[in-house]
Amino acid sequence: MNEEPLVKPYVIGLDLGGTNSVFGIVDSRGEIKATTAIKTASNTVEEYVDRAIDALNVIIEQVGGIETIKAMGIGAPNGNFYSGSIEFAPNLSWAHDGKVPLAKLFSERLNNIPVGLTNDANAAAIGEMAYGVARGMKNFIVITLGTGVGSGIVINGQVVYGCDGFAGELGHVPFRREDGRSCGCGRTGCLETYCSATGVARTAREFLQNSDEDSLLRELKPEDITSLDVSIAASKGDKLAKRVYDFTGEMLGEACADFAAFSSPEAFIFFGGLTKAGDLLMEPLKRSFDEHVLKIYKNKAKFLISGLEGSSAAVLGASAVGWDL
Amino acid sequence: MNEEPLVKPYVIGLDLGGTNSVFGIVDSRGEIKATTAIKTASNTVEEYVDRAIDALNVIIEQVGGIETIKAMGIGAPNGNFYSGSIEFAPNLSWAHDGKVPLAKLFSERLNNIPVGLTNDANAAAIGEMAYGVARGMKNFIVITLGTGVGSGIVINGQVVYGCDGFAGELGHVPFRREDGRSCGCGRTGCLETYCSATGVARTAREFLQNSDEDSLLRELKPEDITSLDVSIAASKGDKLAKRVYDFTGEMLGEACADFAAFSSPEAFIFFGGLTKAGDLLMEPLKRSFDEHVLKIYKNKAKFLISGLEGSSAAVLGASAVGWDL
Repeated sequence: MNEEPLVKPYVIGLDLGGTNSVFGIVDSRGEIKATTAIKTASNTVEEYVDRAIDALNVIIEQVGGIETIKAMGIGAPNGNFYSGSIEFAPNLSWAHDGKVPLAKLFSERLNNIPVGLTNDANAAAIGEMAYGVARGMKNFIVITLGTGVGSGIVINGQVVYGCDGFAGELGHVPFRREDGRSCGCGRTGCLETYCSATGVARTAREFLQNSDEDSLLRELKPEDITSLDVSIAASKGDKLAKRVYDFTGEMLGEACADFAAFSSPEAFIFFGGLTKAGDLLMEPLKRSFDEHVLKIYKNKAKFLISGLEGSSAAVLGASAVGWDL
Repeated sequence: MNEEPLVKPYVIGLDLGGTNSVFGIVDSRGEIKATTAIKTASNTVEEYVDRAIDALNVIIEQVGGIETIKAMGIGAPNGNFYSGSIEFAPNLSWAHDGKVPLAKLFSERLNNIPVGLTNDANAAAIGEMAYGVARGMKNFIVITLGTGVGSGIVINGQVVYGCDGFAGELGHVPFRREDGRSCGCGRTGCLETYCSATGVARTAREFLQNSDEDSLLRELKPEDITSLDVSIAASKGDKLAKRVYDFTGEMLGEACADFAAFSSPEAFIFFGGLTKAGDLLMEPLKRSFDEHVLKIYKNKAKFLISGLEGSSAAVLGASAVGWDL
């Protein structure tokens, strides 16, 4: 008789960002047992994986060796779940003009454990199902509000990858077709140009330029204004800064009303830096959703802020990809 | 020992429209073995079901009795798959102010066979998977272009019903937020106001009013113009009529470009009266899609016209709901 296989209690999560790559070893309840990080920049992907494995081996030993690790999940820009590759990622020097089979490269160096890779927003969606506010939900949309706007869509309990692994780019649905802001994707009026951290700063600069209204933000050079500055000013009662969040929330609520017509989710879950603004953003968002949504969807969706813990949220999301393999 | 159950070779399909209710008994290859129809208008749902059963019993006997029937599928306006009810259907006198459990009512009168009910666009999507051009596809969107615009979305091989059974109302995504046409849903600029049969007629009237251009359509009273008139004029080379289809196709292509960012489907499948315009509609549609879609989705989706046979398409779609029960 063969022995039963040991239960492997951990997965590795990798939050691969443009600047830093953060690793965590996570148990099934979402507790991070060990963590480490490296810089993402490398000359080649091989060099990147070499440095990653060196760093990982230290924390793998801390939790009892590779035999305790069930799988690895990676959240990365332009990550494709189907191919396990990062494809044409503009901000990664070692992956900007081709397909880098990162899942396979890690698996080969980690005793052939299963390694799954997807983009950061999908990883966040899986993380919310595994450890966050979407536990038990089957239909929801995660919208990540960071430097850009990303989305992870879950339908019938499954992440929507589409025919090519790239479904769910709601940040690039155009919302202002006439006079829209120009977007990095080459088109105009995309949601991302309004509702990202950079979009908020852009709105603030526009509002300052188009009025003479007093504002704490006038103490800063326009080009230095960040979404954090706007949030701080608004929390001090600055009216112009508050209007920036009203505008941002209203735009986002209108967008969610459109998304409801697609998948009628039970919740929209917001993730990322901009959510720190809390009700400043969420109140106008909900109001605008109610105003714009088709009658049959009214009062059906919840509006939630991510349940994953602050700085480790992305690592937890990435690790959750591993549990599903 | 119990006897093995007989194979039941047929399902009943019911295409429940505002005016007519068409029934078909269909085999697994999509061949309609018997068909009948009644008027939809009734004082009560009970009266409707009574008349339906009387008509159905005749064709059920023709194919060998109720023992040969596996299940029944219904495609109906505002049909909710989860509840098996028609809910608040504005055009059905016996179902416009409440929830009518039509699936249950039919099942009780048909030997308790399983009865599934969904809206007509979802039924079309299931029909395309069972017998049409979507055989073998896992991710596609059916867009029905009739009096209104409906949609049935399939992801990972499953119809998207959402949290409430009402997902997939893409006809009511607003595409012109400023100066949009007013829509029956109470909002403005919805896709349906442009890309339905009534939208095409509306566009033709606008184009006629806003120019002095010669057109065959000027022989008709503006209020009498239908999408069929526009299609006939265009096929005779009428330039204004052609521009109406260009406009319609371009709008629809732009809409599909947005929908691609949601579920990245391998195909968009068009269903209903307006598709008879063929390339008049499909050429500007594809051109506009390519122009508007995010680069990563370019050249990935196919654009197809429904593979279900003309007048029986809706019955086939409805019947296919039965196979999945």
